[in-house]
Amino acid sequence: MNFKGKDIVSIRDLSREDIDQVLDLAERMIPYAKGEIFTKALDGRILANLFFEPSTRTHMSFSTAMSRLGGRTMEMAHPSMMSVAKGETLTDTIRMVESYSDVIVLRHPHEGSARLAAHFSSKPVINAGDGAGQHPTQTLLDLFTIRREFKRIEDVKVALVGDLKYGRTVHSLAEALTMFGAEVTFVAPANLQMPRETVRQVEKLGGKPKLTSKLEEVIKEVDVLYVTRIQKERFPDPAEYQKIAGVYRIDNDLLREAKRDLIVMHPLPRVDEIAPEVDGTEHARYFVQAFNGVPVRMALLLLVLGGEL
Amino acid sequence: MNFKGKDIVSIRDLSREDIDQVLDLAERMIPYAKGEIFTKALDGRILANLFFEPSTRTHMSFSTAMSRLGGRTMEMAHPSMMSVAKGETLTDTIRMVESYSDVIVLRHPHEGSARLAAHFSSKPVINAGDGAGQHPTQTLLDLFTIRREFKRIEDVKVALVGDLKYGRTVHSLAEALTMFGAEVTFVAPANLQMPRETVRQVEKLGGKPKLTSKLEEVIKEVDVLYVTRIQKERFPDPAEYQKIAGVYRIDNDLLREAKRDLIVMHPLPRVDEIAPEVDGTEHARYFVQAFNGVPVRMALLLLVLGGEL
Amino acid sequence: MNFKGKDIVSIRDLSREDIDQVLDLAERMIPYAKGEIFTKALDGRILANLFFEPSTRTHMSFSTAMSRLGGRTMEMAHPSMMSVAKGETLTDTIRMVESYSDVIVLRHPHEGSARLAAHFSSKPVINAGDGAGQHPTQTLLDLFTIRREFKRIEDVKVALVGDLKYGRTVHSLAEALTMFGAEVTFVAPANLQMPRETVRQVEKLGGKPKLTSKLEEVIKEVDVLYVTRIQKERFPDPAEYQKIAGVYRIDNDLLREAKRDLIVMHPLPRVDEIAPEVDGTEHARYFVQAFNGVPVRMALLLLVLGGEL
Repeated sequence: MNFKGKDIVSIRDLSREDIDQVLDLAERMIPYAKGEIFTKALDGRILANLFFEPSTRTHMSFSTAMSRLGGRTMEMAHPSMMSVAKGETLTDTIRMVESYSDVIVLRHPHEGSARLAAHFSSKPVINAGDGAGQHPTQTLLDLFTIRREFKRIEDVKVALVGDLKYGRTVHSLAEALTMFGAEVTFVAPANLQMPRETVRQVEKLGGKPKLTSKLEEVIKEVDVLYVTRIQKERFPDPAEYQKIAGVYRIDNDLLREAKRDLIVMHPLPRVDEIAPEVDGTEHARYFVQAFNGVPVRMALLLLVLGGEL
Repeated sequence: MNFKGKDIVSIRDLSREDIDQVLDLAERMIPYAKGEIFTKALDGRILANLFFEPSTRTHMSFSTAMSRLGGRTMEMAHPSMMSVAKGETLTDTIRMVESYSDVIVLRHPHEGSARLAAHFSSKPVINAGDGAGQHPTQTLLDLFTIRREFKRIEDVKVALVGDLKYGRTVHSLAEALTMFGAEVTFVAPANLQMPRETVRQVEKLGGKPKLTSKLEEVIKEVDVLYVTRIQKERFPDPAEYQKIAGVYRIDNDLLREAKRDLIVMHPLPRVDEIAPEVDGTEHARYFVQAFNGVPVRMALLLLVLGGEL
Repeated sequence: MNFKGKDIVSIRDLSREDIDQVLDLAERMIPYAKGEIFTKALDGRILANLFFEPSTRTHMSFSTAMSRLGGRTMEMAHPSMMSVAKGETLTDTIRMVESYSDVIVLRHPHEGSARLAAHFSSKPVINAGDGAGQHPTQTLLDLFTIRREFKRIEDVKVALVGDLKYGRTVHSLAEALTMFGAEVTFVAPANLQMPRETVRQVEKLGGKPKLTSKLEEVIKEVDVLYVTRIQKERFPDPAEYQKIAGVYRIDNDLLREAKRDLIVMHPLPRVDEIAPEVDGTEHARYFVQAFNGVPVRMALLLLVLGGEL
């Protein structure tokens, strides 16, 4: 696909070939992302960071990505610059922002906002998370992290762990992993297991997902532990939350059972899901994963803006 | 006038020739403002965005204008970076900011702030709205929008509609339009009509303003409907507000009576003053008007900083 | 010392030679800081402004310093972009930010935060104030201001005035001044005098500090009045605060007693410590001091990032 001028609203809009194209370019972006070499590929271009709710990592990594490409960012972040208090609609805001920028990165609390924005904007819109909807750049950087680590995604055994019911990004990730031939396992307490709809979607894509509530059942086999936060608010009883959170906490005791080259991923920020003692082990990959947001977002920006290295 | 080093505090400080100079240069800025061609005219220069209250459109369009000219912006926006909580005076703040930048864009809730700031700053100060005072760059972009549309301002028939009593910018706009030979009509409910002082000022400038409360009386004749927001707070009785707001709402029914090339303008954000159905018509010009803030502000920045294309 | 890659956590980590190296380079930075000449020395580099509490002057002058060197800044300022609400630890935040930038400027309310951050970050961390801890760039710009004024620091007579007990930066400044051979006097009400520990440290460095509560005793002799804010909160009785604040207020009456070339310094923002009438005298140096933050911070950034002019 020729990405120039395209919106990036949902990972489902991208074919396997499209994703490979992004990840291949992201690979080339690594030394630029690290600040080892420099480019002015997007000199003169402006990215509008339109964040209706905070999202530190996504926000900063888009800014960094644009800067590393020689472009500028304009901040329109919650709550500092918002006219919304005066009652402006999202579509009016978008039609203003498109006048002031070359690409719009949108974070919004409501599902479907990115699709709406993309419809009204003549400039490319990149969805940086819209409520319970999609967060395609997170999925891309997750795929990129696994691909970089194992030199492939096919046949890699990935356990998605934690809140799989409400966790926005794990649904898209499960599908995307399956599309690339990974073997997915869903590890969650019964009340937070993967929704049926996603399980069926994975099966439709040819996957044979294993579902379990027991981490110890899968820890010896898997290559990737993709850990997500379990939110206190999901549990009416705090004691119940504490118990569950304890069971799914990743620590060195657990990791002694794991394959030597197992990697632990997490979209961050973490609270207690991964013990700090894991940080120093060779399993920890969540900080690398956070960094990978930069080259992946650089690749996307370069593609949708038609920049050349 | 040689603008280099000059403050832009009030539209009244500018002669007709000065304004033409800005608008002519703004015309040349269009392709740069759109990001079609690039310039480094203000490379190395720093604009300080000093916003003591939010104003999204003005704020963003100044940032974009500076970026499109290759310059940098430094944000000192409400409420994130403010020492004001510690009790600093505006003059102390200005004397700090002038050390850290080459031009200061000031938005402040109190009338007269921009004049005060300009007095104390050795760097040019551009007034981005000071309470019930002036907002000269808004006036300039309004004039620019009309001039681009009709290839002239002289003899263009402009109806200013809505809250003309408290609406900060319509007073300056009425005077400036008259100075350029436009014919102005003031359409407002009795309690929100144009203040006598402004009417007299317009007359002194040679204008013969028509005052009416009935939109339908003028809709067939005018070339421009300049719509402003009617604020709920002006009406003690909510029912009264609803009634008035309904009467001055612009929709396709009303526009069927209009000249074919009538344009609808609005400083934005709008609430209910213009029906969304108008957006798709050839009358809508408010989004173009918002974009025009970029080339006009680029022209001003280039002039006061003495940059060259 | 080769500063490249080094953290700047405490002024105590720097030798006299190190400080001279910074101040010598800051001297060369002056015309760049003023925007008279331009450099792209840090083109492509990214500074992360990580401010967990507001500090306008420090924040803006770091941004300006980076811009004047051709680099970019990324804002992660309280409270707009913070994941901290979600409970992330400082060390996790730092490990994210280091992925997205080349140098981190950290302001944090807790003492020791900068040391902790420096420990975890592979990129240089510059302490921009950590609670009751250090604020080394403030000390450097204070030294720079005196050195520029008197062409030396040795033997310059400096009176530190106001809240010397809690005032974060005056402790480091007293020590640093003594290290350079200045003669320090501590002028404060009894309950806000310099802590014993600092007095001893100054003596250990060879100083013979004079302590007094009476400004009139020293006003005739000193070359520098370094004034700090006395905070209302330190006094249970508001009347007592008013009395003390009045006694230590600098005005033209007091300055008539002073040496002709005495300079008045203040880290700003001021409240009532210095009468506005002083601004117009040849004694006022606090605005120059604020400006000096730019060349000093430029020098540090250039050194820790290994940039070349």
